[in-house]
Amino acid sequence: MEEARGIQYGDRREAPIGVFDSGVGGLTVVREILHQLPAERITYFGDTARVPYGSKSRETIIRYSRQIIRFLMTRGVKAIVVACNTASAYALEELRPQVEVPIIGVVKPGAKMAAAVTRNGKIGVIGTEGTISSGIYTSFLKDLRPDMQVLGKACPLFVPLAEEGWLEGEVPMLVARSYLEELCHSGIDTLILGCTHYPLLRPAIAEVMGPEVTLVNPAYETAVSLQNLLQEQGLRSPGIHKGTGPLCEFFVSDAADWFNRFAGRILPAGITNTRQIPIEEY
Amino acid sequence: MEEARGIQYGDRREAPIGVFDSGVGGLTVVREILHQLPAERITYFGDTARVPYGSKSRETIIRYSRQIIRFLMTRGVKAIVVACNTASAYALEELRPQVEVPIIGVVKPGAKMAAAVTRNGKIGVIGTEGTISSGIYTSFLKDLRPDMQVLGKACPLFVPLAEEGWLEGEVPMLVARSYLEELCHSGIDTLILGCTHYPLLRPAIAEVMGPEVTLVNPAYETAVSLQNLLQEQGLRSPGIHKGTGPLCEFFVSDAADWFNRFAGRILPAGITNTRQIPIEEY
Repeated sequence: MEEARGIQYGDRREAPIGVFDSGVGGLTVVREILHQLPAERITYFGDTARVPYGSKSRETIIRYSRQIIRFLMTRGVKAIVVACNTASAYALEELRPQVEVPIIGVVKPGAKMAAAVTRNGKIGVIGTEGTISSGIYTSFLKDLRPDMQVLGKACPLFVPLAEEGWLEGEVPMLVARSYLEELCHSGIDTLILGCTHYPLLRPAIAEVMGPEVTLVNPAYETAVSLQNLLQEQGLRSPGIHKGTGPLCEFFVSDAADWFNRFAGRILPAGITNTRQIPIEEY
Repeated sequence: MEEARGIQYGDRREAPIGVFDSGVGGLTVVREILHQLPAERITYFGDTARVPYGSKSRETIIRYSRQIIRFLMTRGVKAIVVACNTASAYALEELRPQVEVPIIGVVKPGAKMAAAVTRNGKIGVIGTEGTISSGIYTSFLKDLRPDMQVLGKACPLFVPLAEEGWLEGEVPMLVARSYLEELCHSGIDTLILGCTHYPLLRPAIAEVMGPEVTLVNPAYETAVSLQNLLQEQGLRSPGIHKGTGPLCEFFVSDAADWFNRFAGRILPAGITNTRQIPIEEY
């Protein structure tokens, strides 16, 4: 992969972690990384001009992910987190050989955590059409435990519901009930929230699924995996910021103001420094 | 605007009409053109890789529209129909001076028709966030009749509902009721379906609004305006096809198969010849 670093860090450990998603959903992963790894810098890219990824083809998602990784490399990142389930499902293994920094997705950590919490070995996965039809969660879960029973269900309307901020009330409840009814009666004891937007709808999903079903948000385990990876590679931040740049920086492909407003709902501190970049040119 | 015609027609009248939309919604306009102007060829482009347009910024929509117009010009079109309300609202007047063939949108025809059918001068408009916040319907309606009262309401979830084919039952009814309740009690007698996807949800919208409110689909009047425009400019097809190409051709920016399936719900004849093109390169 072509690399045109605009920024270089003398001490690689001080470089930021690149995180990307189709839009704002990946901020739920950023929230978890900030919580577990408070000394790390983050460079986030949200592809707000081309969101959603969930209904697009594998080839298109790979092309978009490649452009984004090129952009993140120009920011001198020391590792990349693909904080989008659809991109993790379609593009991660394809692009890994071309990226010269460590790269992880959210799917493998999510599968690992679900396998650890299930008691009866029956796991449900909800996600975009792309993630579910790729069968990637099933494949990782069966690698961990071959007798696992996995039931997938695409819930395409959850992303626009979450992006519209329609998180509670009759409509999300009815939509959740329509999508999840089958899973409710399937005997699963664990449900993976296989799309970074879905944790925003957690109250409605939890109410429909009931207290017997454990909801797994892959963001938590992704931050744990990231921590281990940085440790192994000697890339953990020494925690002394020498003013090489801000702790977090945010980039989007469409207008920044809407992103800033939405980010305030997810991240503990408000964002105001988001910049728009022409991602198609990378 | 740069023009690189791949196809040229000896008799300009035999050239196709270029029609574009953010995705499949514009096929409701194609359906109306085919019905009213059966002798015309159509070259359709659906920007399925970058749909939806409704929540994106004006600058992004103008950039996307410019690329699409460049592409349509390479197909030798004799006129262009912007079959997307958001692109009509944001990009039409900006791009018109740069396009050397006649170009029309769906907003002005929609406003004209609504002004013709209203009895009490109170008109509702539903559309994407972009279309509603642009205030373009209000502006055209007040040009036609300054005392007109116009109420706009953005209904962002209607597009994903329609694209998922979730056209009837409890969920679209509840979503329609949530969005339209205010308009129901506002005294409007006419409601403009200001997004090309919305005619697909007409049954739910009609049931919520009741029989006293006339629903206006701008597609009908757009085809009438197109017919007048072609007539004025001496561009009506003579109706004799000499084998220069197919009657209709379809292009998309993402995988063609989903588009083909969806098109079957809207157009009288099925589509199988859709081609994917790299729109970002235009």
